[in-house]
Amino acid sequence: MFVFEANPMPAQFTFPFSPKGKSAIVPSPPWSYAGDALVVEFWARPDAVKALLPEGLKLDEDAGHAQALFVDWQFTASGDEFLDPARYQYREFYILIDAIYRDKKVAFCPYIFVDNDSAMARGWAQGFPKRLASVFQTRTFAAPSKASPRLAAGNRFAGSMSSNGQRLAEGRVLIEKPLENPSSLASRPTINLRHFPQLATGKHQTPAVHELVQAQFSNYSLKDAWVGRGDLVLPECRGEELSDLAPLKCGLGFRASMGLTVDGLIILPT
Amino acid sequence: MFVFEANPMPAQFTFPFSPKGKSAIVPSPPWSYAGDALVVEFWARPDAVKALLPEGLKLDEDAGHAQALFVDWQFTASGDEFLDPARYQYREFYILIDAIYRDKKVAFCPYIFVDNDSAMARGWAQGFPKRLASVFQTRTFAAPSKASPRLAAGNRFAGSMSSNGQRLAEGRVLIEKPLENPSSLASRPTINLRHFPQLATGKHQTPAVHELVQAQFSNYSLKDAWVGRGDLVLPECRGEELSDLAPLKCGLGFRASMGLTVDGLIILPT
Amino acid sequence: MFVFEANPMPAQFTFPFSPKGKSAIVPSPPWSYAGDALVVEFWARPDAVKALLPEGLKLDEDAGHAQALFVDWQFTASGDEFLDPARYQYREFYILIDAIYRDKKVAFCPYIFVDNDSAMARGWAQGFPKRLASVFQTRTFAAPSKASPRLAAGNRFAGSMSSNGQRLAEGRVLIEKPLENPSSLASRPTINLRHFPQLATGKHQTPAVHELVQAQFSNYSLKDAWVGRGDLVLPECRGEELSDLAPLKCGLGFRASMGLTVDGLIILPT
Amino acid sequence: MFVFEANPMPAQFTFPFSPKGKSAIVPSPPWSYAGDALVVEFWARPDAVKALLPEGLKLDEDAGHAQALFVDWQFTASGDEFLDPARYQYREFYILIDAIYRDKKVAFCPYIFVDNDSAMARGWAQGFPKRLASVFQTRTFAAPSKASPRLAAGNRFAGSMSSNGQRLAEGRVLIEKPLENPSSLASRPTINLRHFPQLATGKHQTPAVHELVQAQFSNYSLKDAWVGRGDLVLPECRGEELSDLAPLKCGLGFRASMGLTVDGLIILPT
Repeated sequence: MFVFEANPMPAQFTFPFSPKGKSAIVPSPPWSYAGDALVVEFWARPDAVKALLPEGLKLDEDAGHAQALFVDWQFTASGDEFLDPARYQYREFYILIDAIYRDKKVAFCPYIFVDNDSAMARGWAQGFPKRLASVFQTRTFAAPSKASPRLAAGNRFAGSMSSNGQRLAEGRVLIEKPLENPSSLASRPTINLRHFPQLATGKHQTPAVHELVQAQFSNYSLKDAWVGRGDLVLPECRGEELSDLAPLKCGLGFRASMGLTVDGLIILPT
Repeated sequence: MFVFEANPMPAQFTFPFSPKGKSAIVPSPPWSYAGDALVVEFWARPDAVKALLPEGLKLDEDAGHAQALFVDWQFTASGDEFLDPARYQYREFYILIDAIYRDKKVAFCPYIFVDNDSAMARGWAQGFPKRLASVFQTRTFAAPSKASPRLAAGNRFAGSMSSNGQRLAEGRVLIEKPLENPSSLASRPTINLRHFPQLATGKHQTPAVHELVQAQFSNYSLKDAWVGRGDLVLPECRGEELSDLAPLKCGLGFRASMGLTVDGLIILPT
Repeated sequence: MFVFEANPMPAQFTFPFSPKGKSAIVPSPPWSYAGDALVVEFWARPDAVKALLPEGLKLDEDAGHAQALFVDWQFTASGDEFLDPARYQYREFYILIDAIYRDKKVAFCPYIFVDNDSAMARGWAQGFPKRLASVFQTRTFAAPSKASPRLAAGNRFAGSMSSNGQRLAEGRVLIEKPLENPSSLASRPTINLRHFPQLATGKHQTPAVHELVQAQFSNYSLKDAWVGRGDLVLPECRGEELSDLAPLKCGLGFRASMGLTVDGLIILPT
Repeated sequence: MFVFEANPMPAQFTFPFSPKGKSAIVPSPPWSYAGDALVVEFWARPDAVKALLPEGLKLDEDAGHAQALFVDWQFTASGDEFLDPARYQYREFYILIDAIYRDKKVAFCPYIFVDNDSAMARGWAQGFPKRLASVFQTRTFAAPSKASPRLAAGNRFAGSMSSNGQRLAEGRVLIEKPLENPSSLASRPTINLRHFPQLATGKHQTPAVHELVQAQFSNYSLKDAWVGRGDLVLPECRGEELSDLAPLKCGLGFRASMGLTVDGLIILPT
């Protein structure tokens, strides 16, 4: 195997490898994000949640409890990437399911979809199993308009996600009051299954990388967080299994702005 | 010619005509909008501006003066369309050039691009000559993040527009201070050339509709308006003439949120 | 109203109007096309078909009979547009329903979707009520491969259409034998309802253009036409009425290549 | 590290891992392909080519010699994926540069772009450094039409590729005669740099996977191959380095259909 340290292009995090590093699909970390999120709490069938947990994770006692998130993201690394929104701005939908790792309450991400390749590549590096989709959510704007729900009790926001032309998820949030304890929104660490397959002949069942990891964040911020009621639909679609998580019941709904920096990750022992 | 009033589907503004009107590309007006806008003031070659003016409009005395606008829009009619962002949310880029109509200072829109078909159809009904493109702009988010420029002096926002895979426009705004006199942003009425071609054999040069119109707005609102310096690039591209307006000089830059309702229009006499 | 003949830009069929005409969304006719088509014959509920017929058309005696077509198109006018596939190549899905116009058997197009704005604009000029969608069909390639169905008995082709993230149509064709009488594929003239709305205040219900038209074609060619069995699904979707035409029964399926030129149209008397 | 063999989802090649494997971004290999390709031979600056070669590869004696390929692909694995073109059909642009591996003439792929996420994921598994783009090429259709160039001397085909709204490549081929010795089209084995980054804190410069690999193909077929003259443009674009390979000279051009199966790969010693 090649020793990377001896490579003449050492400073670049990932491919394509070009002399100045500008063509790379992802700039080197740390990676900073700002976003608007719609979040719907729900309960899926416990056996459907259990079937998605990798080795090392167990079903939470609140079996089947999960969250669906629609996020409009803006990204930057150290190169003012926020000024190139055509390449780096993106939208995301993902599911977090409650799980237990070594007696610790964690969240695990079995499904995630984005509309941008740089986001997909960063996701894979972090263990997020990203696929492409179109993702949309209702926005609020500073100027008053019938077209823009204000952040005020009784207003509604909706999100949707479609992949390969099929509508896989629709969510709605009715906001009722400002969220007093913001920590309730993201109280569990997210554990991912980082995986890179092996295509070497005869070894397709022995992946090159297959490990539980925990992201390392900094600069977490939350603003304009509102809570109310949420609703989620995960329709049955050809060639897809996301609908196995179709809600038995929905719970709280949230709408918030947030910021964070991804610095790296920790590989977890089993 | 068919008399529309006798048609069994009378209440629908445009096609496709379906029994309940749900399939229509555009719901019936009035149409309400909320948006975030980046605006760059610039001066193009006066002869290039003049070449775009239809009969009935004359070159303004500030010959060549124009604006480029990038807008993230949210739309609604009377059916809560803001809750279906996959179908109705969109992004737009357009140029307004200063002109004179019967001694009145007006703005004329020679080029406009959107990323949504419902917006295109509404545009055509209003006389906006819309084509499809991908349009992006830097956003600001409520939560602090390195990835999000705050509305504060010295911060930068960028926009870009690409059609059929060619980058036709790039803009930047450096905001310096809140805008004290917001009326400076949209002081002229917008005059459009409403056009619908004639494909009847032998009559291709006699359009079915070809008239100057002025939009009728209500509920205009402006919020969080900042002013600073703007910059715009309109690169030469194969099969395109937008670059004829390439700035000789750029001027002010703006970043603002706005809302408005389009109620109808007036057909202007020549 | 403006007299178009006096306009300084007389030779251009439609907007945007630029000095050399290059920016126009559509080049001037005639328009030539080459395409690969999947066609599924089906019968919808007669009342659902009847509800889509405009004034001037009556239900055919084979009440409910219709066709669904998926087409991969390549377009050219007189400017070698086939060498700019990013701007002019496109994919289309449409429905043709049997109808009677003044005792003549015709086909009427109530729904049509494309993935390209130039195709949309040409469609509107012809009376096709086009909206945007993503459209795909299985292709056959000259080189043998497990990934490519050959034109041979027993092989299968599939098509799908999704608009605004919802899967609105799925079709399949199993080919059985070469089509001996190609005229069976397109035996009826297509009648469209050409419509352009009126946004002038107080006149929204009196469209500027609303007329039945018949396209004028030349250079029609058909090649490699196969016939077999077809299957079509039109799923129920939020905010859509296409599913009212969901097949009661499906019939023949076709797969063919075709070429044609659109020269103009005739406005039909009522 | 987790042992994959003990995982309850052993039969799935890559993520997302769902009980039946249907949600996976890529079905398990082998992977079969059929495609139409436009190929342009060219010579870039030798130092620009050399700067892209990873450790283990040397510059070929025909320094700077390269090929640009535009391909319309159809994909299938064992699940009739060719019948789900919305998910699995795709278009690709890539560059192959001549290189030497241990005295063997090989081709190396420094840049490759596709318009589909499943293709991107398969590419990464194979060591192709894929990013997203829109890719188009002129097609030929069986039925005669002015819109369709036939496979006959003097006809022209064009391709283009745009990523994040910038036009990165344009190619043209004028075909002159059938290709008599098809092996001239793909005479060298393709060597890729398979890479998967390491995000573990403090180890960003030590990738998890970084190795030269050679694909293992079977069922290679070529049909309707024509040769003539090629032309290629790689414009300078913001944030991109592909233009460093801008042709000093262009050579032959090809247009062909091809099929192949990817069975696996061999990891190459250094």
